[in-house]
Amino acid sequence: MLSIDEIKNQLKEILSEKRYKHSLGVADEAEKLARRYGADVHKAYLAGLVHDCAKEYDPNDMENILRTKYGISADYMSRLMPKILHGQLGACDAQSKFFIYDPEVLDAVRYHTTGKGSMSLLTKIIYIADYIEPGRDFDGVEALRKKAYENLDEAIILGIDETIKDLLNRGLVIHPDTVHARNDLVIRRSR
Amino acid sequence: MLSIDEIKNQLKEILSEKRYKHSLGVADEAEKLARRYGADVHKAYLAGLVHDCAKEYDPNDMENILRTKYGISADYMSRLMPKILHGQLGACDAQSKFFIYDPEVLDAVRYHTTGKGSMSLLTKIIYIADYIEPGRDFDGVEALRKKAYENLDEAIILGIDETIKDLLNRGLVIHPDTVHARNDLVIRRSR
Repeated sequence: MLSIDEIKNQLKEILSEKRYKHSLGVADEAEKLARRYGADVHKAYLAGLVHDCAKEYDPNDMENILRTKYGISADYMSRLMPKILHGQLGACDAQSKFFIYDPEVLDAVRYHTTGKGSMSLLTKIIYIADYIEPGRDFDGVEALRKKAYENLDEAIILGIDETIKDLLNRGLVIHPDTVHARNDLVIRRSR
Repeated sequence: MLSIDEIKNQLKEILSEKRYKHSLGVADEAEKLARRYGADVHKAYLAGLVHDCAKEYDPNDMENILRTKYGISADYMSRLMPKILHGQLGACDAQSKFFIYDPEVLDAVRYHTTGKGSMSLLTKIIYIADYIEPGRDFDGVEALRKKAYENLDEAIILGIDETIKDLLNRGLVIHPDTVHARNDLVIRRSR
């Protein structure tokens, strides 16, 4: 694996200034959340740092890069919402560019936008850190920040609820993984 | 198959007065929609008439009846929202009690609450007829009635959107079939 400084130097080249700053924000937030919930703070910082490393590709090229460079076929949902491929593509680039091979870190990068059923603690942390890092500003962000440190699962349910409402209002498809992520957390809550 | 009158007589025994009236309303609405969209009007009336034939069981008994009487295992979602089993159980009862074996009619009964990916015209008609039959009264019902006769798929998307928003607000799980149904229609719209 490259050192954190080496990865940062590469990210500065790849990402816009705004997105690089966002990545540092997610890394810091993920580290704090990892401390709060007893996850590995180094993995959390690393996953947060690289989670958007593939986000500057043209979304229309993502499916092609994933297939030709990495031999991975995108699922049918990606045809309609190609941007979501930046998670999967980011996990691949994290391997080929930064030599990160830890499956827990790669999964957190892969599913940080859609979520999935039975998320690991690290995947949950990156999902919500991406939502609440200090650079984020939207109605209700303060309440969500507070909730993230009180009850991680409830915060993720809230985050997913907002994501789904936004997709409904915009007439866009909803990724089944997002619904599985929410159902899984709702089911655990009711036990 | 029993005659329509024989089925009505049985339904009067099985269902509350209110639900029997609702069933007649869905049958009439489905027949009108079938005429509008060129579906089989007799199948539409029949499917509408029997769609709720299993709704008076205690929801807590539905999984057990489905398993012991019909040898069908309920999926994991049904543990959390047992009421949705009335569609699947209704399709079974329609066979065993009314001797209806037409797979198109049975599918329309089976999926009238959740929807599913790639719905047949008849399944779509029963789904939306259940929403807009004359006895229904909720904010926006008139707009949905109008839409149902203008553009069936758009009306179903609207109906599913309202269903999902309601489940989000109540903190309940969302059946994956409902999301597949909506995604399928949204994808077709964008082609």
